[in-house]
Amino acid sequence: MNSPQKTSRIGQLVQHFSQLIDQAKLTPGARLPSIRSAAKEFKVSTFTVVQAYDRLVALSYVEARKGAGFFVARGSSSIEQKRSAVPLQDVYWLLNDGFDPAPNALAPGGGSLPDSWVDEPGLRRAMRSLGRGCGPLAEYGDSRGLPALRQWLQSYLGERGVYVESEQVVLTQGASQALNLVINTLLQPGDCVLVDDPGYINLLANLRDHKVEVVGVPWTPHGPDIAKLDELLARHRPKAFFTNPWLQNPTGSSYSPAVAHRVLQLADTHDCWIVENDVYGQLVQNNQPLLAALDNLQRVIYVGSLSKSMAPSLRVGFVTAEPAVAEALQHYKMTTGLYSSQLSEHLALQMLNDGSQRKRYQKLRDRLWQAQLFARQQAQQMGWQCWAPIAPTPFLWIGSSQQDFDPVALARAGLKQNILLSPGCIFRPGLEATPWLRFNVALSEDPAIWRFLAESQGNTSRVT
Amino acid sequence: MNSPQKTSRIGQLVQHFSQLIDQAKLTPGARLPSIRSAAKEFKVSTFTVVQAYDRLVALSYVEARKGAGFFVARGSSSIEQKRSAVPLQDVYWLLNDGFDPAPNALAPGGGSLPDSWVDEPGLRRAMRSLGRGCGPLAEYGDSRGLPALRQWLQSYLGERGVYVESEQVVLTQGASQALNLVINTLLQPGDCVLVDDPGYINLLANLRDHKVEVVGVPWTPHGPDIAKLDELLARHRPKAFFTNPWLQNPTGSSYSPAVAHRVLQLADTHDCWIVENDVYGQLVQNNQPLLAALDNLQRVIYVGSLSKSMAPSLRVGFVTAEPAVAEALQHYKMTTGLYSSQLSEHLALQMLNDGSQRKRYQKLRDRLWQAQLFARQQAQQMGWQCWAPIAPTPFLWIGSSQQDFDPVALARAGLKQNILLSPGCIFRPGLEATPWLRFNVALSEDPAIWRFLAESQGNTSRVT
Repeated sequence: MNSPQKTSRIGQLVQHFSQLIDQAKLTPGARLPSIRSAAKEFKVSTFTVVQAYDRLVALSYVEARKGAGFFVARGSSSIEQKRSAVPLQDVYWLLNDGFDPAPNALAPGGGSLPDSWVDEPGLRRAMRSLGRGCGPLAEYGDSRGLPALRQWLQSYLGERGVYVESEQVVLTQGASQALNLVINTLLQPGDCVLVDDPGYINLLANLRDHKVEVVGVPWTPHGPDIAKLDELLARHRPKAFFTNPWLQNPTGSSYSPAVAHRVLQLADTHDCWIVENDVYGQLVQNNQPLLAALDNLQRVIYVGSLSKSMAPSLRVGFVTAEPAVAEALQHYKMTTGLYSSQLSEHLALQMLNDGSQRKRYQKLRDRLWQAQLFARQQAQQMGWQCWAPIAPTPFLWIGSSQQDFDPVALARAGLKQNILLSPGCIFRPGLEATPWLRFNVALSEDPAIWRFLAESQGNTSRVT
Repeated sequence: MNSPQKTSRIGQLVQHFSQLIDQAKLTPGARLPSIRSAAKEFKVSTFTVVQAYDRLVALSYVEARKGAGFFVARGSSSIEQKRSAVPLQDVYWLLNDGFDPAPNALAPGGGSLPDSWVDEPGLRRAMRSLGRGCGPLAEYGDSRGLPALRQWLQSYLGERGVYVESEQVVLTQGASQALNLVINTLLQPGDCVLVDDPGYINLLANLRDHKVEVVGVPWTPHGPDIAKLDELLARHRPKAFFTNPWLQNPTGSSYSPAVAHRVLQLADTHDCWIVENDVYGQLVQNNQPLLAALDNLQRVIYVGSLSKSMAPSLRVGFVTAEPAVAEALQHYKMTTGLYSSQLSEHLALQMLNDGSQRKRYQKLRDRLWQAQLFARQQAQQMGWQCWAPIAPTPFLWIGSSQQDFDPVALARAGLKQNILLSPGCIFRPGLEATPWLRFNVALSEDPAIWRFLAESQGNTSRVT
């Protein structure tokens, strides 16, 4: 990304080789230098080379052949895909270091709500209140997580039509650990899974690292494209479909009732797990039933977050599923990381029970709605398009219909001015080019962002 | 274990097949029922059968042959090993559900310090103090973890002779997540690793699930057996040696200086990573340098915990290594679970800075010393032996030299009276039989425990 931020040694090597491949200086079938000779040539440790080659494998640039070394990938689909994909070098920094923008950066491309939008006062209130109390607070607790919070979730899920025992709920360090447990429980390297395209960036990274074949299902403003989903289920026989049906990240749109019904029907027909990722569940206002409710947790595994829109620093997520799956998830939770933080769970429960959350969520939705209106207005004034109807979500998927519009060039220009943008390609399984970008409306209120975008129009067309 | 607690469906299947194999009703090479037919026979889902077979594979009972199904393992070493190993059925409950003893149980076999031994008051004080303060507290923060806490660790490690930049420190959800990141970063399924034998139970479980070949290095009262280590390094060419040099879990003994030096020499000769697991680092009092200090983080990866002996519910651990390894660990941290809890990190730092921790650690060591004295006295009165000299650690490795002494039978009898014991075999890579047990002296102060043990002497010999 030509970013002002420094890139790690591993990152430099990944970018170096991906560039050679993208520029056809290394062609399909060509052998990469051996680990030892690359280490010598680039003056790095063999560990660094192994890690770089592993990431190139995960990104389908390179194939490992047991005992023979590493070769430029020649699998037909991955090559075709690569021809249309954005050069890895251009987005590597965003994919790997975008989590830590410079402290004074503007980050309209960021993924989470800022401190001033979440319940900082409520968190401090809960800390003072629990700090004054008594009862065990410093111990590990229960391996599935704080029983009282699992009971709270049992009734919360019940209100949303998902009837579970509290033993079927496993608390995790955020929804991300929950997704990671699902990946480790359901999938073996080499398995195929379907994902929303575009979809959740960090899930894609995790699946790639897990050496799973990832196939995107085109996302429409009403959920996945059903005809395409049917075709992909039949062709790839995937183990699971990871989807984010409500206020989807990155587009902000949701399944229609008919799509929800059809997706479950198709999953039944093709014997495929559905992983319903619902991290912003508490922002959703409509009365549409969850996939987990429609299906009664037969083949749906439901992942949620309690802290994300309340106090992200708590890192309290959960997953619920049929009893055998829940038991397997708990097993992996313990072997790979032991207990979740009982203290965070106590604090989350205290916040949920203090009576102010329902009102706060209403306020948060109003505020998101206002921020959506502002950002949409700004975008439309520049002649950009909004992809989905307005909804109370942080995410806005916008782009220009100008023929030579290149979001990656725009993001590169942004980085130079300390403005972090998220070009749409980073949310796609094969980094395929797209004229869209993801904005976070809660982080897009500064007029300097829109001034920069207006000024950059035309300067960032597809000449790099 | 014939435990009063219910065992999951997956667990029941694992126990069923392991019993058939242990009793030679299923012999090496025999094919297990197909997934579908087992599901039908046992009236469970195919998911349950797959999970059970996977665990049997991880425990070397069964081999998966691609496309052909699951077969009783016939690998020579695993079979020989199994002949001497304890039947899985006898310890399955302890391995999988021992994390959650019944609320009114006595748990001298437990692994952690109880609430009354850790800094519950300090935790509440930190919560009240931070709860009254201001500044960002609810956000995700930095992907490596709270910068101020990493700087604290930089100077803490410097005092112990390990000189790092704070960017080389990655904060994690407890030392367990740190170990899991190391496993995912260094190892591929099929790789070989060495571990302390006996060693850390949850590390063994994680390595098994990761489908890594695990070879034990016999542990002496002064650390690993050096001659044997040399031989195993040469024979197995392992990628890494996971070891717990200080106040080792489960034996409570530590490396001697000469052993530390020799282990690092051998690791150099055989090009093997050393993963120094030092969760109880803050309890260690001697002035012996860490492996990480001797080696200057060339081939040592150092894992520690801040919360374990301060406030376990915080779940704050860390890992430090050379820059390229630290960067790779951070990459896996983010793809598999995103940020660690910035709130927990703030609270840990507040506790570490409040001036009382040094004094508290001295008190904790005194208290552990007293509890060691008591438990050792009780054990000796029964004619049991203590394996290592006394040290301020929760762990005491004791056993009877009586010829027919069977710790597994004793543990089984204990469970019936709601007393959770940890027979030594569960800390061994192949569940090999051993006349030792691990006690946690902080959980062994109740005279009822020792009454039970004295009464059980003789009733629990090797007739089951």
